[in-house]
Amino acid sequence: MLDTILPWQVVTSSVTYEDRWLRIRSDHCLTPRGVQVNPYHVIEYPDWVNVVALARETLQLVLVREYRHGRREVVTGLVSGTVEPSDAAGATDPAESAARRELCEETGYSAGEFKRLLVSYPNPANQNNLVISFLALDVVLGGDRLLDASEDIEVVLAELPEVMLRLRSGELRMQAMHVAALWSACAHIIGSDNLTAAAVALREKLVAALGVT
Amino acid sequence: MLDTILPWQVVTSSVTYEDRWLRIRSDHCLTPRGVQVNPYHVIEYPDWVNVVALARETLQLVLVREYRHGRREVVTGLVSGTVEPSDAAGATDPAESAARRELCEETGYSAGEFKRLLVSYPNPANQNNLVISFLALDVVLGGDRLLDASEDIEVVLAELPEVMLRLRSGELRMQAMHVAALWSACAHIIGSDNLTAAAVALREKLVAALGVT
Repeated sequence: MLDTILPWQVVTSSVTYEDRWLRIRSDHCLTPRGVQVNPYHVIEYPDWVNVVALARETLQLVLVREYRHGRREVVTGLVSGTVEPSDAAGATDPAESAARRELCEETGYSAGEFKRLLVSYPNPANQNNLVISFLALDVVLGGDRLLDASEDIEVVLAELPEVMLRLRSGELRMQAMHVAALWSACAHIIGSDNLTAAAVALREKLVAALGVT
Repeated sequence: MLDTILPWQVVTSSVTYEDRWLRIRSDHCLTPRGVQVNPYHVIEYPDWVNVVALARETLQLVLVREYRHGRREVVTGLVSGTVEPSDAAGATDPAESAARRELCEETGYSAGEFKRLLVSYPNPANQNNLVISFLALDVVLGGDRLLDASEDIEVVLAELPEVMLRLRSGELRMQAMHVAALWSACAHIIGSDNLTAAAVALREKLVAALGVT
């Protein structure tokens, strides 16, 4: 064991696959112990976002169901997407702009105060991007949905405590980034002492549902 | 909106990149509305595992720190890895075998009862694999570590409530699959009414730390 874990050096680097959808960079690396690692593939993605969106007053969770071809399954999950170059225009937080845009495009919900909930790595071994999760406690229906021609997205409203119980039991299966965001949202709501009256009511339901005595 | 969300048909499919480390399958798809999606890349990976391993008696969390070249950062996380073909030999649960093997190889901890905590998708849009998370409440040090030549892994023991507080505040940044597994472990421990005395003590510390009153 070295005293300190040091980064690898990159000896050479080239893009070995690239099209509109996917970009793979392949590095020839040298570890601090002098071991050659070649090739080491890194999939270069823009940052991703997702949002735990709770509707104003009811605090129902806004979920989407869509077909995900990687698994060839219809999967329920959070609104999510990619930070696009256009999200940076005039934005103090391009990730928040992306989350607001994706929420409106996929569901028609908008407005509300967006709070950064979690910054996480989708896969720090093989991808270069981050995933940024937001909590929005008071979104409202009213924007125009805008789906790609290939997208078919069903909007589902659900009670957050029930979703967490179904996740905990394994009955509901979601992608890991959404599971992380949802539990982080619950931890935030349960631990916060600065909540609206509606959120305090939600907190009480969450605490009761999760069996915390 | 269609009444039911249907899967895409695959018209043709070919492997467009393949080496020892990475395999990309590119499908020409047809959506239920008749839209051509071509190419749609799927990264084919084996299933992945990770483990929330708590040491016997102390219930300290066994973490690893290592350099992750995708992000070019040293990242703290759970023991994790890939389900290998050899993990299936004689195993009722190849994923559990993989988790036990990875835990021993990376840290020297072994034994204990492993419980499936969470099955999740790393990325159901673009990858075909699952990630299976385990909770092991009573691992002990004693096995032989076995690291690849390119690996340099530091083992870190930590108090679970403190790790969760640092994750919640954003001070500690982990990969999303590990965040999901850790919160799922806490939800399991907090919600379970069938815990050992040591786990009940941990539960009380978790509930106190997370501000649940």
